[in-house]
Amino acid sequence: MKRSNPGFSRRGLALGGLAAPLLAGRASAQALPVPPAMLEQGAPVEAAPYGKPAPTEAGVVRRSRLGAENQPILGTAGSTLTPHGDLDGIITPNGLHFLRHHAGTPSIAPEQHRLLVHGLVERPLVFTMDQLRRFPTVSRLHFLECSGNTPFFQQARIRPDWTVQDTHGLLSCAEWTGVRLADVLAEAGVKPGAAWMLAEGADAAGLTRSIPVAKALDDAMLCWAQNGEALRPEQGYPLRLFLPGYEGNTSVKWLRRLKLDTQPFMTREETSKYTSLMPDGSAKQFNFTMAVKSVITRPSGGQTMGAPGFREISGIAWSGRGTVRRVEVSTDGGATWQDAQLQAPVLDKCLTRFRLPWQWQGGPALLASRATDSTGEVQPTRAALLAETGPFHVYHYNGIQLWQVQADGNVRNAY
Amino acid sequence: MKRSNPGFSRRGLALGGLAAPLLAGRASAQALPVPPAMLEQGAPVEAAPYGKPAPTEAGVVRRSRLGAENQPILGTAGSTLTPHGDLDGIITPNGLHFLRHHAGTPSIAPEQHRLLVHGLVERPLVFTMDQLRRFPTVSRLHFLECSGNTPFFQQARIRPDWTVQDTHGLLSCAEWTGVRLADVLAEAGVKPGAAWMLAEGADAAGLTRSIPVAKALDDAMLCWAQNGEALRPEQGYPLRLFLPGYEGNTSVKWLRRLKLDTQPFMTREETSKYTSLMPDGSAKQFNFTMAVKSVITRPSGGQTMGAPGFREISGIAWSGRGTVRRVEVSTDGGATWQDAQLQAPVLDKCLTRFRLPWQWQGGPALLASRATDSTGEVQPTRAALLAETGPFHVYHYNGIQLWQVQADGNVRNAY
Repeated sequence: MKRSNPGFSRRGLALGGLAAPLLAGRASAQALPVPPAMLEQGAPVEAAPYGKPAPTEAGVVRRSRLGAENQPILGTAGSTLTPHGDLDGIITPNGLHFLRHHAGTPSIAPEQHRLLVHGLVERPLVFTMDQLRRFPTVSRLHFLECSGNTPFFQQARIRPDWTVQDTHGLLSCAEWTGVRLADVLAEAGVKPGAAWMLAEGADAAGLTRSIPVAKALDDAMLCWAQNGEALRPEQGYPLRLFLPGYEGNTSVKWLRRLKLDTQPFMTREETSKYTSLMPDGSAKQFNFTMAVKSVITRPSGGQTMGAPGFREISGIAWSGRGTVRRVEVSTDGGATWQDAQLQAPVLDKCLTRFRLPWQWQGGPALLASRATDSTGEVQPTRAALLAETGPFHVYHYNGIQLWQVQADGNVRNAY
Repeated sequence: MKRSNPGFSRRGLALGGLAAPLLAGRASAQALPVPPAMLEQGAPVEAAPYGKPAPTEAGVVRRSRLGAENQPILGTAGSTLTPHGDLDGIITPNGLHFLRHHAGTPSIAPEQHRLLVHGLVERPLVFTMDQLRRFPTVSRLHFLECSGNTPFFQQARIRPDWTVQDTHGLLSCAEWTGVRLADVLAEAGVKPGAAWMLAEGADAAGLTRSIPVAKALDDAMLCWAQNGEALRPEQGYPLRLFLPGYEGNTSVKWLRRLKLDTQPFMTREETSKYTSLMPDGSAKQFNFTMAVKSVITRPSGGQTMGAPGFREISGIAWSGRGTVRRVEVSTDGGATWQDAQLQAPVLDKCLTRFRLPWQWQGGPALLASRATDSTGEVQPTRAALLAETGPFHVYHYNGIQLWQVQADGNVRNAY
């Protein structure tokens, strides 16, 4: 197995060269005072039947994006964002998975919950949670991204003080466990002609989306677990649909009903919302798959650089169409690019962590990342994307994100 | 991509055959009453800046193993266990990662924390957390298992009412992020002759272990993050050593000091404890690597079977020596075996989820799993292991676990 960091060594950054910028002091054992924690017993094991983050990490939380008037957008039809600038690796802990709901988080007793499967099926069926759990199970690591992740806003509405939590926080990644929807539909018997499936949530919005039956029979899952444990209430407890690679709100939470028919159902969330207005006034509808995308999370907006010297540029990349094949990183706003290292495992429709070693000389720099997926699709520049989509687009922004490293070491959103 | 469950279909278990045992009722849309949650707005997004499990999941927590007198073993030198019988997939959520500490969980301010590297090095160094975070980072999915996981107890001390949380709960799995210890040691300059490294924790136990420098220079990490976010306090916040595949307590938490020398340091935790007494009275010392092992988590001790019919047998397998190559499952106490399906991804020194479809006829059954790792090592029976280790062994039990399914559907520990 390869233990060394190829990017770190192949560029001839001798490890000794880190000593000065790291400012690690020479020391002896006597130079290290005994810390207070070593002088008294700590908290007993029974203090934490279910663990929580350290109090000193209280700033690492979900929060709403700040709007134009500096007011958070909250309430029962709102969203809160994953703080990617504070996270490492590819797993989003359940407490920090992004939220988006249309009528708040319902409180559902799992033993009362039912899933109805009806419409163009041979045998309409109602399942309890226990009955669903009797099917063969499957676990997969997948990202979930809201189609509204990263605003398409015109320049005047974009804030230079936005962090990566503001720009890309409607994205998270977890290990999802449940059953194959294909197995459940086989139990009901899909009738010929069934081409669309309505999925309805048991929240007060009764959120509904139309899903192609082809997707339902492909890799769709009915999930009850996330990162090993039961779904959190705000993620659909006790049951959600999960559609790998599709825009987030099609993975309907608190799932209570699946109805098959020949045509899409034309619900609010796919007619007035979650469609993309094109320059000619037409609307792009049923635009499900999240395109290839990436963002640098460190250094990123709101962070400060500290002393000049060695820095690792680190970020995440993903595609709803497959795996991430390549990520390039630029420190000069896209004039030149270098291949970043992809951290294994690189999985289908999952976040991939990328890294590039960098010697920051202390001056201004313009950081960018550009991902390519297994279909060969390349993440576009903001200008190219806007030229294609026109000024009224809202959903499915996947342009290259720029972070401006200022001469003073502060990092700002340069979109 | 393969979407169907090979184990489920290849044995000719027609999906229609599930209908009766699943007891899913025929239904129409009218048959599904509108649940209360759809009639009122749910909780707003700002109610959960950091999410928690549903109140109805309050029973899924870490707890101590019940001792001979039915009393939990708690306090500042105790442990609590991961509830594997309630978990899915391979990721352990941070709130449920097992605990083991010798003087409680210390409270450490990260900006005050220091790591001293000294002894047989060219340049003794002290690092702050910020300085350590400047090194190139790495993220890896690995299990962590206490060498005391699964008691070696003689039959009289083993309880038939133990669940898999009691028998195998000192085991968890997470995505760990930090820096390569090899890079940090290169910064200090390892002197010729340095063969052992003392690792010391900043808890009141001042827990110390001697680690081979070869391991330190191989895949050892200095970690600050677990499943994306900062380590939880009870997992070593702000910094821990992580030694993939090694017995848990060598991955010293609250790490404050690394000292290199020619010989092991003979600390309490490797002389009077964490050694294995052999039949001839000698002690097996520095027995670091956790051997190949597996356990069925569903059905498992304390669970009930419900109605006869289709069941999935599901469990976890792991090895400190590499990857899991094969898991076999028996329903007749080891008389016959069938190959289980391994859920991708199968990763190095990481939990692997296995599954086998099963038609339970309603009578007694004796369930067992047997793992083989990438080195070819096969998990032994309890009898074979005890014959080798003798009656005084405490650590590194990796025998095959048996669960007795009783005629009444209750599942009991048959060790």
